[in-house]
Amino acid sequence: MEAEIITIGDELLIGQTIDTNSAYFGQQLGGIGISIKRKTAISDHAQAILDALAEAFSRVDLVIMTGGLGPTKDDITKKTLCTYYQCGYRRDENVLAHLAQIFEARGRLMLETNQVQADVPALCETLHNAVGTAPGMWFDRNGKVLVSLPGVPGEVYHLTEERVIPKLKAKFPLPTIQHRTLVTLQKAESLLSRQLEPFEASLPPHLSLAYLPSFNMVKLRLSQTIQNSDIPESDDIDRYFVLLQQAIVEDVFCLGDIDPALYLSKYLINNNISFTTAESCTGGWVAHRLMQAPGISAVYPGSLVAYANEVKSQELGVDRAIIETYGAVSENCALAMANGVREKFGVDLAIATTGIAGPGGGSKEKPVGFVYIAVCTANEQMCKSFRLFGNREQIIQRSSNAALWMVKQLLKLPTDSAA
Amino acid sequence: MEAEIITIGDELLIGQTIDTNSAYFGQQLGGIGISIKRKTAISDHAQAILDALAEAFSRVDLVIMTGGLGPTKDDITKKTLCTYYQCGYRRDENVLAHLAQIFEARGRLMLETNQVQADVPALCETLHNAVGTAPGMWFDRNGKVLVSLPGVPGEVYHLTEERVIPKLKAKFPLPTIQHRTLVTLQKAESLLSRQLEPFEASLPPHLSLAYLPSFNMVKLRLSQTIQNSDIPESDDIDRYFVLLQQAIVEDVFCLGDIDPALYLSKYLINNNISFTTAESCTGGWVAHRLMQAPGISAVYPGSLVAYANEVKSQELGVDRAIIETYGAVSENCALAMANGVREKFGVDLAIATTGIAGPGGGSKEKPVGFVYIAVCTANEQMCKSFRLFGNREQIIQRSSNAALWMVKQLLKLPTDSAA
Repeated sequence: MEAEIITIGDELLIGQTIDTNSAYFGQQLGGIGISIKRKTAISDHAQAILDALAEAFSRVDLVIMTGGLGPTKDDITKKTLCTYYQCGYRRDENVLAHLAQIFEARGRLMLETNQVQADVPALCETLHNAVGTAPGMWFDRNGKVLVSLPGVPGEVYHLTEERVIPKLKAKFPLPTIQHRTLVTLQKAESLLSRQLEPFEASLPPHLSLAYLPSFNMVKLRLSQTIQNSDIPESDDIDRYFVLLQQAIVEDVFCLGDIDPALYLSKYLINNNISFTTAESCTGGWVAHRLMQAPGISAVYPGSLVAYANEVKSQELGVDRAIIETYGAVSENCALAMANGVREKFGVDLAIATTGIAGPGGGSKEKPVGFVYIAVCTANEQMCKSFRLFGNREQIIQRSSNAALWMVKQLLKLPTDSAA
Repeated sequence: MEAEIITIGDELLIGQTIDTNSAYFGQQLGGIGISIKRKTAISDHAQAILDALAEAFSRVDLVIMTGGLGPTKDDITKKTLCTYYQCGYRRDENVLAHLAQIFEARGRLMLETNQVQADVPALCETLHNAVGTAPGMWFDRNGKVLVSLPGVPGEVYHLTEERVIPKLKAKFPLPTIQHRTLVTLQKAESLLSRQLEPFEASLPPHLSLAYLPSFNMVKLRLSQTIQNSDIPESDDIDRYFVLLQQAIVEDVFCLGDIDPALYLSKYLINNNISFTTAESCTGGWVAHRLMQAPGISAVYPGSLVAYANEVKSQELGVDRAIIETYGAVSENCALAMANGVREKFGVDLAIATTGIAGPGGGSKEKPVGFVYIAVCTANEQMCKSFRLFGNREQIIQRSSNAALWMVKQLLKLPTDSAA
């Protein structure tokens, strides 16, 4: 089964927005056995939309379209879809009720320009958008399905996972595709791939391994495609997933297609391990990643960003002599920050970061990207230095992944606990 | 002048790589008056490439193509371009000399598999790639230009700026396109659009306005296209940009296509206004957005995340009676947090947040998305409640934009200072 993606919006063409939705669709549709044949980005013009639609449907039976559904007049997707499907508008009562609810909750008056968001092409079925105002639209004519979604990434994720994927599975006969994903931190893709050469060579044809790298993190996704049910049981994906874990056992951070920070924070909640952070170069990013799990307040009282040296000494009790002798970017300072913040908040575990995120502040001895990370509990402590590369934002992201990895080392975190 | 972009590579279609080159081309070509009519991503297959090329050249005279030029066997762009242009290969002496130089510098032997990188379609002109091995290729046949570039972003930037842009300027008579962008916070796109109806109606045909919304933020972009020099001076974009600002003067946060947090942090640095935050529901996100500017350490000593009530009282001096009487999510608590953290860090300005980010913790009186934000200086303070919607992440992002907006109100921030 093949599909095409059409993204609508001048902001993509003039380069004001980087298109992340397309990569998301590639992953999501790939996950249910639909491969993307082509992606097309076009402008907010009716003729461009009509042309792209006709061309796409000449090649495939499924088109996913995003963008152009807001209330302002430069959003013309709906009007053009009425032209394409030769139908008028209908006011959708469910969408109208949802809009009314949103406006009431915000204590704002609903204007006629808002109400028109409930007007949709008569031939479509609306897909309830619980996180936004514009509904998704599902057109099914002559065996060809068009799904039209808003362009806001959060709304795309919600509508795709809650509405579109289940409807596609019900509509089309799709192969069974299963995935098993694990997360590694700190080891480069090239080293992992060399280590996994024998494993990859051993894979039967219906299994494949993909490397999904980001900052100091590589997700490994093992996929199994079953067109029919004649795959022998001994070749099944779970057996190979165990072999994969065994081949790189030291490098596995956690199992599942999950943000490792979310995995760690759920582990801390489930095991009632309270924690805090004292961050210099990462500016609160480690804490922010760890506080995303609902229920985190049970184990997270709060944390401190300690940029200035005065804050490191006054708030964290870092001895001024340490900063004067070794500098704020030093193993001694990182450990003192971690121990200081742990005592301050009276928690089980503390993480501290101090380094040069750049672009300024680097020296020959301590260049941009040079970062110390310390983690400690009441009985143990650990500090490591890292030389990370990239711009300021990337160094902060890489530092936060390094911090997660260090917590795993200190707590001897299991990789297979439920996440 | 219109162009199309074709990107080649399965990694884009399956979502393994996010396409950043396309946005880059949009910006670069837009800057010299070439607008991108369409962007198409296709797989590494000859027929897909041939089809996409023929279709693109049926619509425009300029096509930029990236990807598929490496030495491995799944890179078939060159072979396919020989088919398309009905020509054979020639070995390019300049490319060969460049390759020999690279291999000599690395102390490695050049193999025949490396030398074939110097073989290019006979009809193309090569574009010297100083930062990589694969040359760019320029085809100019029957008034239609095809530029084929490698996919590596660093090589794309080098070849585009040093080779492609100068050749395009020499080849085509180009219009001038200019953009003026401003950022608004807190007002809905639909309300802005109603307010701007007279302004939009007044725009001459060579000017256009686009709305680019995200969480409680709308960027407004005014664009001017001048095909020749007969536009009267009084119609110029800067005059209309002033009119645009006047039409929504209360809602403009800052001028320029800029993250408002970066704008604000640069303003604080330039005006030597030190600041800190005490964050509950936003978990450090406000501070993190504000510390992205290089040089921020001059005005930002650090900040506190105060999740637990004990941290609010012990670290920020919030009177326990306030929390018991009004609750932690209250105007009184938010103001006490802001004043407490300002004194703690001895800074000019403090921001405090307390609210229900969800998914749990909501009540009928204080539902998920109900957030108090307080800002204060030594002499002034301000607190407002907000009812924000979306998931946890979106509520945090919307809260942070609301906090920026409140700082503007308190400091009576000018919108036109250099950012």
